[in-house]
Amino acid sequence: MSKVAKQAGCNFRPHFKTHQSVKVGEWFRDFGVEKIAVSSLQMAEKFAVAGWDDILVAIPLNLNETDRINLLAKRIRLGLVVECDITVAMLKRELQHPVDVYVELDSGYNRTGISWDDFVTIQMTIDRISQAALMTFRGFIVHAGQTYQVNTGSAEKNRLEILDIHKESLTKLQIIRGKYEEYCSDLVISYGDTPSCSLAKDFGPVTEIRPGNFVFYDMMMVNLGVCQPNDVAISMACPVIGMNHKRQEVAVYGGAVHFSKEFITVNSKPMFGQLVQSSSLGWGNPIEGAILKGLSQEHGIVSFSTKTTFNRIGIGDILYFLPVHSCLTASTMGQYTLPDGEVIVL
Amino acid sequence: MSKVAKQAGCNFRPHFKTHQSVKVGEWFRDFGVEKIAVSSLQMAEKFAVAGWDDILVAIPLNLNETDRINLLAKRIRLGLVVECDITVAMLKRELQHPVDVYVELDSGYNRTGISWDDFVTIQMTIDRISQAALMTFRGFIVHAGQTYQVNTGSAEKNRLEILDIHKESLTKLQIIRGKYEEYCSDLVISYGDTPSCSLAKDFGPVTEIRPGNFVFYDMMMVNLGVCQPNDVAISMACPVIGMNHKRQEVAVYGGAVHFSKEFITVNSKPMFGQLVQSSSLGWGNPIEGAILKGLSQEHGIVSFSTKTTFNRIGIGDILYFLPVHSCLTASTMGQYTLPDGEVIVL
Repeated sequence: MSKVAKQAGCNFRPHFKTHQSVKVGEWFRDFGVEKIAVSSLQMAEKFAVAGWDDILVAIPLNLNETDRINLLAKRIRLGLVVECDITVAMLKRELQHPVDVYVELDSGYNRTGISWDDFVTIQMTIDRISQAALMTFRGFIVHAGQTYQVNTGSAEKNRLEILDIHKESLTKLQIIRGKYEEYCSDLVISYGDTPSCSLAKDFGPVTEIRPGNFVFYDMMMVNLGVCQPNDVAISMACPVIGMNHKRQEVAVYGGAVHFSKEFITVNSKPMFGQLVQSSSLGWGNPIEGAILKGLSQEHGIVSFSTKTTFNRIGIGDILYFLPVHSCLTASTMGQYTLPDGEVIVL
Repeated sequence: MSKVAKQAGCNFRPHFKTHQSVKVGEWFRDFGVEKIAVSSLQMAEKFAVAGWDDILVAIPLNLNETDRINLLAKRIRLGLVVECDITVAMLKRELQHPVDVYVELDSGYNRTGISWDDFVTIQMTIDRISQAALMTFRGFIVHAGQTYQVNTGSAEKNRLEILDIHKESLTKLQIIRGKYEEYCSDLVISYGDTPSCSLAKDFGPVTEIRPGNFVFYDMMMVNLGVCQPNDVAISMACPVIGMNHKRQEVAVYGGAVHFSKEFITVNSKPMFGQLVQSSSLGWGNPIEGAILKGLSQEHGIVSFSTKTTFNRIGIGDILYFLPVHSCLTASTMGQYTLPDGEVIVL
């Protein structure tokens, strides 16, 4: 991903919300990474303690946390996100140290952000920021999360649709760049969900990419056609606690509190994780037809399409699963075991 | 629930996996509760430290945790669950202290447990337990979790269907009791999901009820017709971080890592939580048409069917939501704030 950024002439500000680990974060330094994004002040505090001093909290700021914002802004270069002028006005009253402010724009995901073409509100928000002595308007952040929702049924078509969304976003951002370049030297346009950044080569007016999920990938990305199962760098290890020979199903100790309840639909059925082979390196290739089909609080149920693989499994075995959504599964894990056995606590 | 158990002549062994809190657990002592159920050894350890000395780990035992089992069995009366004779044989080799063993039966949920009418396997498993010096066969546990899946579209019909499932289970358990009473003085038949225990009066052959969710209830239980919104004793407080006037939507800082991604379908749309009124006691009645319609990692999006309620909300406000599945939401919360302001860490 570092190479993608370099080739596109963009800054690379990886989103650390996926791995949430200080140790994994350190690995990014080898690729020249100095700026990061997180999705909560709590994460920002953790990475600030670990020595990161340019952190963007890439979620509209929570006005109930201005005390924490002030403490952090005193120590590091802190980037905050706003999506309306009211937040700016209210933050202004409380702010005690300088912060970078980014305006979130919505290029079509319909989650948060000012609609990219609502130039009146964008202008009003930038003006308010400019009036606040401790705030510096740095640019815009955009998250085209609609790329995660692409679902044509074919990996090839998914990829084309993701690239179409990407192209459409770039056209919009080109207009934004033209209109607001004068308001800020080195106007930042921070962009980039994992699907777009994994597939696109051209980033047009974008000056910074901000993907997070790519650090691990997951079955959702495999299903989208964004990566291959072998690219998934995280798995959940679950012990077998029950076997049902009649239904050809295995019960594992691994439930919603471990995986999260995110699922994708494969062959019209919900899938909460993909069973993979065990290997000396941890895990190997997916086992065809062996999927985590249901989760309750602590139980997971694995179904098998063939007797051969089912018969190889025994009570007490450890099974490995590629998660559907690595960001959520990693967050519930609380710790990772590296291939060499080292345990990293998040 | 204590009264339900008393009137049915059953022991009351509440499942503590829902609240997971030592403090909330203490409140149960006022109702004469001395025996509890949990869903992991980790929880068992926590409640053992808090002084509970009769704990059933109500999930098929994990053979990779025999060290922890031994440590715990040395200190308290520990109940373990098995669903096959292989587990018994393997545990026997490792066990160092006496434990109570319960055989899990499946009365139709199809998750774990020996099928209630597979008398050959049941017999074989009981025989194996009897041959192990440190194991005492105590009886059966059953979880009719299929009551959670009832979905007729009408609360009244849901209740009838839940009671039908309950009645069917009792018929099966009556046969079990008749067949295996001789194997154990005071044979335990431990039963009871929250829907059944909330609605049923008659528990026939059941000797112990083991519900958990009822301590808080949630929107899933409201939707099932098992309780009213006013019975829900837990809510998630989320700050407003964004507002979209055109879509009439509010963005809150409260996402999948806070609520879990469990949802129910209401009016053909997914619902991840129900907005309720704020009140001096914490929260009040549900706000009609105001539902948490989507969740990403840290964001939640609330939609409003009327402008009146939407217009009352402002950036920075704290909104309260009844969760869809309180067991999962409580687990992610990590701590509770009581109405008097006291904070309880799980």
